[in-house]
Amino acid sequence: MTPFDFNLTCPLPITEYPHVLMAHGSGGKLMHRLIEAVIVPAFGNPILESRHDGAILPPLTGRLAFTTDSFVVRPLFFPGGDIGKLAVCGTVNDLAMCGARPLYLSVGFILEEGLPMETFWRVVQSMRAQAAAIGVQIVTGDTKVVDRGKGDGIFINTSGVGVVADGLHIGPAHVQSGDALILSGDIGRHGMAIMAVREGLEFEGAIESDCAPLAAPVHALIDAGIRVHCLRDLTRGGLASALVEIAEASRRAIHIEERRIPVRDDVRGACEILGFDPLYVANEGRFAAFVAPEDAARAVEILRGYEPTATQIGAVADSPAGLVTLRSAIGGSRIIDMLTGEQLPRIC
Amino acid sequence: MTPFDFNLTCPLPITEYPHVLMAHGSGGKLMHRLIEAVIVPAFGNPILESRHDGAILPPLTGRLAFTTDSFVVRPLFFPGGDIGKLAVCGTVNDLAMCGARPLYLSVGFILEEGLPMETFWRVVQSMRAQAAAIGVQIVTGDTKVVDRGKGDGIFINTSGVGVVADGLHIGPAHVQSGDALILSGDIGRHGMAIMAVREGLEFEGAIESDCAPLAAPVHALIDAGIRVHCLRDLTRGGLASALVEIAEASRRAIHIEERRIPVRDDVRGACEILGFDPLYVANEGRFAAFVAPEDAARAVEILRGYEPTATQIGAVADSPAGLVTLRSAIGGSRIIDMLTGEQLPRIC
Repeated sequence: MTPFDFNLTCPLPITEYPHVLMAHGSGGKLMHRLIEAVIVPAFGNPILESRHDGAILPPLTGRLAFTTDSFVVRPLFFPGGDIGKLAVCGTVNDLAMCGARPLYLSVGFILEEGLPMETFWRVVQSMRAQAAAIGVQIVTGDTKVVDRGKGDGIFINTSGVGVVADGLHIGPAHVQSGDALILSGDIGRHGMAIMAVREGLEFEGAIESDCAPLAAPVHALIDAGIRVHCLRDLTRGGLASALVEIAEASRRAIHIEERRIPVRDDVRGACEILGFDPLYVANEGRFAAFVAPEDAARAVEILRGYEPTATQIGAVADSPAGLVTLRSAIGGSRIIDMLTGEQLPRIC
Repeated sequence: MTPFDFNLTCPLPITEYPHVLMAHGSGGKLMHRLIEAVIVPAFGNPILESRHDGAILPPLTGRLAFTTDSFVVRPLFFPGGDIGKLAVCGTVNDLAMCGARPLYLSVGFILEEGLPMETFWRVVQSMRAQAAAIGVQIVTGDTKVVDRGKGDGIFINTSGVGVVADGLHIGPAHVQSGDALILSGDIGRHGMAIMAVREGLEFEGAIESDCAPLAAPVHALIDAGIRVHCLRDLTRGGLASALVEIAEASRRAIHIEERRIPVRDDVRGACEILGFDPLYVANEGRFAAFVAPEDAARAVEILRGYEPTATQIGAVADSPAGLVTLRSAIGGSRIIDMLTGEQLPRIC
């Protein structure tokens, strides 16, 4: 379910030009026209509209969280999302993983000369819709244009600021032995949605990306008093790489059980056809939560209100420190390593 | 004078690979190796080193300023600077133009497969040196890799946060009739430095970019009690486009005198050869300051401590509202328009 209606009609001629020209990045008239015709109508808010070199934000309470991500996904539009939705959700999710409430985003576009103006417009509309749905404001931005053949349609950087409530400390350093490891839902959908499109694979119904904002489920946990010690979204490198990072950073052992890890049948099938391990496939709407063991059942219950496949998949122990071990469906045990090589280029 | 020593030797093999591979953007082992070998040693600080999805900042006092800019300049290295120095100065300068003290930067790299690792390393060293010289910390980042032929070596986005002191209100809305318009130094150097390299022009000594951080001169004005009403750095579109934007946004008239606008002889010569008007050529270390008329002489004196060519070039009046008029060296008067078309592609 995407908030962006793909049948939305672009009110052409939006900028008089059907394609992006080098002059749209010039700092001159055409760039101003692009901003006035496409960007301000979509993102317009009192902070952005001051049209200054930067945004001055209203007073904030709490510690500030600050994060950045660039997006180079191919194709620009895919089942369940597009680069614009991804760019808003990705940075919002990084803030949420710090325990922050996302408030403000910046957006930097790098457009390739010749990009259809309608494509740019659709991406901007998707960002607008997603930001509105989450309740974040896009308050400052930048547009650059590179010559044809020196970019790939559109790259987007979003940076974000949010606030972390006093007393809330979430991160790898706070993982404790005994913590329950909860997965917020089934894995592998984003990566397989993208790969299926690229490879022209047809399944019964397209695999849709799980691309989604994660601030609401995270704050549902926090607001319910769940003792959340660490959060991590499972993007590039997938569940496996995220857990290895946390095991190494926290110097704890993470034990997971393969049979508890939810993977949809169509995703599992696509992984088998293409030779991928779902543990390493990127997600854009899933996270791992390390919570106090007494709170595990309640945390799962809360997360199931957002995604029915949320479940506990493992726990933290003292040893073997720094390692992730997986007990396979048939009972064997193996050490999980970080992704080696490049499995899924330009997945986000 | 650049803080980056171009003869610095890269400690190869820094990442075991002489060129950037797609796997360096995978989220897996090679990406971690790149971060550990190149990025953390350069930018390392306690906030960055928490290696979380975002940075949690120490408590800040004052209103927050937030800005973003992407950098796609060609060539990556030019007389007086490089894309890394530009990426740090550009965002610091946008913060300074809001009257903010720059504190923290994010950095997002989009690397092209095949980029020499040493080039990346040199750019990162330049960012490190520039950030250290200014006193800002790079606290969060992201690295993506795109396939060969879908990027152009390296694109950089930097976003920044800073704080604006209470009671300080700087922006186009605060421009008043009678304000003095002060230029912080001679114009046209950045654009002509880049164009001279691209066109292979040789002058007596290379034209060096004016690329420089502007927070120090701005805060020298503010700290001296100068009533600063508006500030604007003179990047893409040059002095002319910046002034037109401010005249339009403030609904005031800006009158400038051509003979007062400092342009170096070599820059003027390069402009004549290449057919550019220095008024429209990009700068990366120059700004316009609108200050109360009683403070003008003192403001010029302060700015000359940073750049001897700083001078008052005009003033603000009520009419003709929204327009910039220039009195030429020979006494005629004309209306100045915003840059039309694309004069200098990929200048920053």
